Amino acid sequence: MSSTAVYFSKKPKLTSPVMIEGLPGIGYIGKNVVDYLIDELKAEKFGEILSSYFPPLVLMNPEKNGLIEELKNEFYYVKKGKNLKNDLILLTGDTQSIDMQGHFVIGRKIIEVAHSYGTKRIITLGGFSTGALSEKDPKVFGAGTDEKIIKEFEKYNVVFKKSPIGQIIGASGILLSIAKRHNMDGVCLMGETSGILSSDPKSTEGVINVLSSYIGFKINLEKLDKRAKEMDKIIKKLEKVKKGMVSGKTQTSEQLGYIG
Amino acid sequence: MSSTAVYFSKKPKLTSPVMIEGLPGIGYIGKNVVDYLIDELKAEKFGEILSSYFPPLVLMNPEKNGLIEELKNEFYYVKKGKNLKNDLILLTGDTQSIDMQGHFVIGRKIIEVAHSYGTKRIITLGGFSTGALSEKDPKVFGAGTDEKIIKEFEKYNVVFKKSPIGQIIGASGILLSIAKRHNMDGVCLMGETSGILSSDPKSTEGVINVLSSYIGFKINLEKLDKRAKEMDKIIKKLEKVKKGMVSGKTQTSEQLGYIG
Amino acid sequence: MSSTAVYFSKKPKLTSPVMIEGLPGIGYIGKNVVDYLIDELKAEKFGEILSSYFPPLVLMNPEKNGLIEELKNEFYYVKKGKNLKNDLILLTGDTQSIDMQGHFVIGRKIIEVAHSYGTKRIITLGGFSTGALSEKDPKVFGAGTDEKIIKEFEKYNVVFKKSPIGQIIGASGILLSIAKRHNMDGVCLMGETSGILSSDPKSTEGVINVLSSYIGFKINLEKLDKRAKEMDKIIKKLEKVKKGMVSGKTQTSEQLGYIG
Amino acid sequence: MSSTAVYFSKKPKLTSPVMIEGLPGIGYIGKNVVDYLIDELKAEKFGEILSSYFPPLVLMNPEKNGLIEELKNEFYYVKKGKNLKNDLILLTGDTQSIDMQGHFVIGRKIIEVAHSYGTKRIITLGGFSTGALSEKDPKVFGAGTDEKIIKEFEKYNVVFKKSPIGQIIGASGILLSIAKRHNMDGVCLMGETSGILSSDPKSTEGVINVLSSYIGFKINLEKLDKRAKEMDKIIKKLEKVKKGMVSGKTQTSEQLGYIG
Repeated sequence: MSSTAVYFSKKPKLTSPVMIEGLPGIGYIGKNVVDYLIDELKAEKFGEILSSYFPPLVLMNPEKNGLIEELKNEFYYVKKGKNLKNDLILLTGDTQSIDMQGHFVIGRKIIEVAHSYGTKRIITLGGFSTGALSEKDPKVFGAGTDEKIIKEFEKYNVVFKKSPIGQIIGASGILLSIAKRHNMDGVCLMGETSGILSSDPKSTEGVINVLSSYIGFKINLEKLDKRAKEMDKIIKKLEKVKKGMVSGKTQTSEQLGYIG
Repeated sequence: MSSTAVYFSKKPKLTSPVMIEGLPGIGYIGKNVVDYLIDELKAEKFGEILSSYFPPLVLMNPEKNGLIEELKNEFYYVKKGKNLKNDLILLTGDTQSIDMQGHFVIGRKIIEVAHSYGTKRIITLGGFSTGALSEKDPKVFGAGTDEKIIKEFEKYNVVFKKSPIGQIIGASGILLSIAKRHNMDGVCLMGETSGILSSDPKSTEGVINVLSSYIGFKINLEKLDKRAKEMDKIIKKLEKVKKGMVSGKTQTSEQLGYIG
Repeated sequence: MSSTAVYFSKKPKLTSPVMIEGLPGIGYIGKNVVDYLIDELKAEKFGEILSSYFPPLVLMNPEKNGLIEELKNEFYYVKKGKNLKNDLILLTGDTQSIDMQGHFVIGRKIIEVAHSYGTKRIITLGGFSTGALSEKDPKVFGAGTDEKIIKEFEKYNVVFKKSPIGQIIGASGILLSIAKRHNMDGVCLMGETSGILSSDPKSTEGVINVLSSYIGFKINLEKLDKRAKEMDKIIKKLEKVKKGMVSGKTQTSEQLGYIG
Repeated sequence: MSSTAVYFSKKPKLTSPVMIEGLPGIGYIGKNVVDYLIDELKAEKFGEILSSYFPPLVLMNPEKNGLIEELKNEFYYVKKGKNLKNDLILLTGDTQSIDMQGHFVIGRKIIEVAHSYGTKRIITLGGFSTGALSEKDPKVFGAGTDEKIIKEFEKYNVVFKKSPIGQIIGASGILLSIAKRHNMDGVCLMGETSGILSSDPKSTEGVINVLSSYIGFKINLEKLDKRAKEMDKIIKKLEKVKKGMVSGKTQTSEQLGYIG
């Protein structure tokens, strides 16, 4: 009785687009990077995913105009041009699945969409939390579906070998796994972050640098800085909201006094 | 293998009825308001929803006559008249889903029923818990599916802009979201409440005032007071019952010694 | 992908059999009563239910012969005779569902079986835990699907009116609810018990007394005493086993080190 | 919407193969034994199971080459020869189901594969944790589907009667139960282990000794020792990784900040 559906508002014509996923995760690195790309590359929205595996709630529009907003994942696209080597599909969203199995269901829907547009490569983004603040420039760690893509991204200083990473949890990992089963290649780029601060502009910038070298767009550092500061405020608010909320069935029921 | 079914006992003829939902939630505001309306407007029951997403138990009839009662959500209707501007469908019940995904499944069933009777607008009711007692008259906060309905309800002193609300959890939120996808408009009215007392007559009255202005019925304050006091007793009993009960699979199994 | 299946080993011909359910629950009252009836009335097994809603484990045969035993619910029957007014279907088992929704799925299967044999009445058994030891003879509390059956069982000193019971959790409650929807009547008999001792022979005896008066068999008090003592030993062992076991997905996974 | 799929890379011709299961569990006894057999008997992989009941993550290849690895269960085979009395199917893997119901779903898939190759007997492996270190040689406890197989394995000093084991949780138990329903016989061999050390070479050796006597291969004790030491290092790392990971929906969501 669960459901996960894709709604398309447009059907753009794309040529072998690379899909870049940036859903909420450790340090919001992935989401921050993709939202920056959407803004900077003036990407257009063409579809969204709703799922009963998302939390059972609606958000209030952050601009506080009184409008409700559904939790969703959103597909954007941008076509290649003078400073962009590839057509891109950009995936952002408010949430990942809150159910173990939902990750697989939603992941397959996302790969279906990628596949239907001729995507042969998926780049998933995330953070790797070290648990300690550091003065050094954060590294970008990587994981790949095959040796060829690993060699390709090692050129951009992504660290694949002997990394401290043991596993990739959630969409960034599962999407690579499903992509590989569908004859796509893929790479996960993870910005090193302390995990202590709610967001991490330096780590975000590191991941954007890799993508910039790979796809060819130029980075607007000023805008990036401004976005980072705004994002930080929003994340801090969200952290407050989350406490006592996404803590599973039991608490939700108790809080709301569902049993009348 | 889950199931959610609607059972109709009548098929009333209704003209563009507005649906008002009042399931158990924060401070029982929504349920208290709708149960008051059912009583005051002499609404008639025409259907009910049973679901395996409700807790696996039966209630003893509160009048203690020895009869069991299923947990259910119930549909009532009342037709427009001299002091009522619209046909109404009123939704009350004993419980909401205790499963994350169940909210979506049951929500879709409710909207299907609304849709089949020609409903174009849904009003969901709830409470917003401030965590502190206050001397001031409680506000009624709102959230809407579009700007038109927001403007309409701002006339009745509902606060939409810059409200402290970040999200609406459960039926009151999910119903608006599903309604919007089915081309209905909708508004959620949330009575400000401390969340400390088990029920909150002042907050309930605030929400009833808004509905009274909107739909046109007159309020019987005396009855409302009496109901509030009775409700308070029932809720206090329920709170006791809930402890150690709705605390998920594990505790239930342990309590009952299911593994023989 | 869940599954719940009934396996029949016989297809006995029964005439309007009354079904009596005694699955593990509070104080093992229900299970003790039904297992006593199976033994005393020399009931024969004719079917069993397996379900993926039962815990994912097999038991070792309690006689420790090295054989495994599946967790199951079992159907027995006995035909009416000189000291038995009705054909009976007796339902016992090792466990109830450990999943909220599983109660509804398994409950429907049980009622299907009852229905297919022409059952018009179901008696479910359980315990009501007072939380305190008492010198007085334990009461038998009741809950019924309609006033007629309540009146009928009030003759046997079952307490229906103004009982302290607010809800009936699990199979004993859900079966009545499903039975009622299938035009059967039903009653739940609950032996008052402290809930402190692992089993409660006095409370068990109280429930057997009611059934004895209702169906007409004679009670073998000596055997009942002996069984109670044996059962007590088994239950104490089971209590040890349960600790740290049925505590949900997480603990099970951790204990077993599932992630290799 | 859940899914569990078997992918075959080969279709070997096998004659009444015995299936031996060694998935992660208490003390990693089962997995260590089967991985030793795969290595020592030069077994070839012919299939794998993926399932949405496994945790939603990918592993990094333990050789840290930057490649991702899906969580899976794997089928190997080896044909009988001078020192092996039977064709064997060996089942190893990274994980068991992390969902109660998943055990039944995956278990049925495994038995389907066994059945399709003409398997009539399944040997499942596990550990039995005593909670205390002991100087004595660890016993091998057993549980069987019928008396014949119990007698057969008693010849190899497996302890079936009056064992301290009350239940067998997870794949090792459920597979026997499903096998029996499909007219296979089966035995579970459980190496006695303290449960205090992360792995237990002595206990592993005990189980290998039984299998060696039963199937006829010779044990390479030197290799076994070397493997045990390597395995110990890996397990210690995994234990670290597991903390804070397999702790259910809630923690995973919170850790990752899924709600953006």
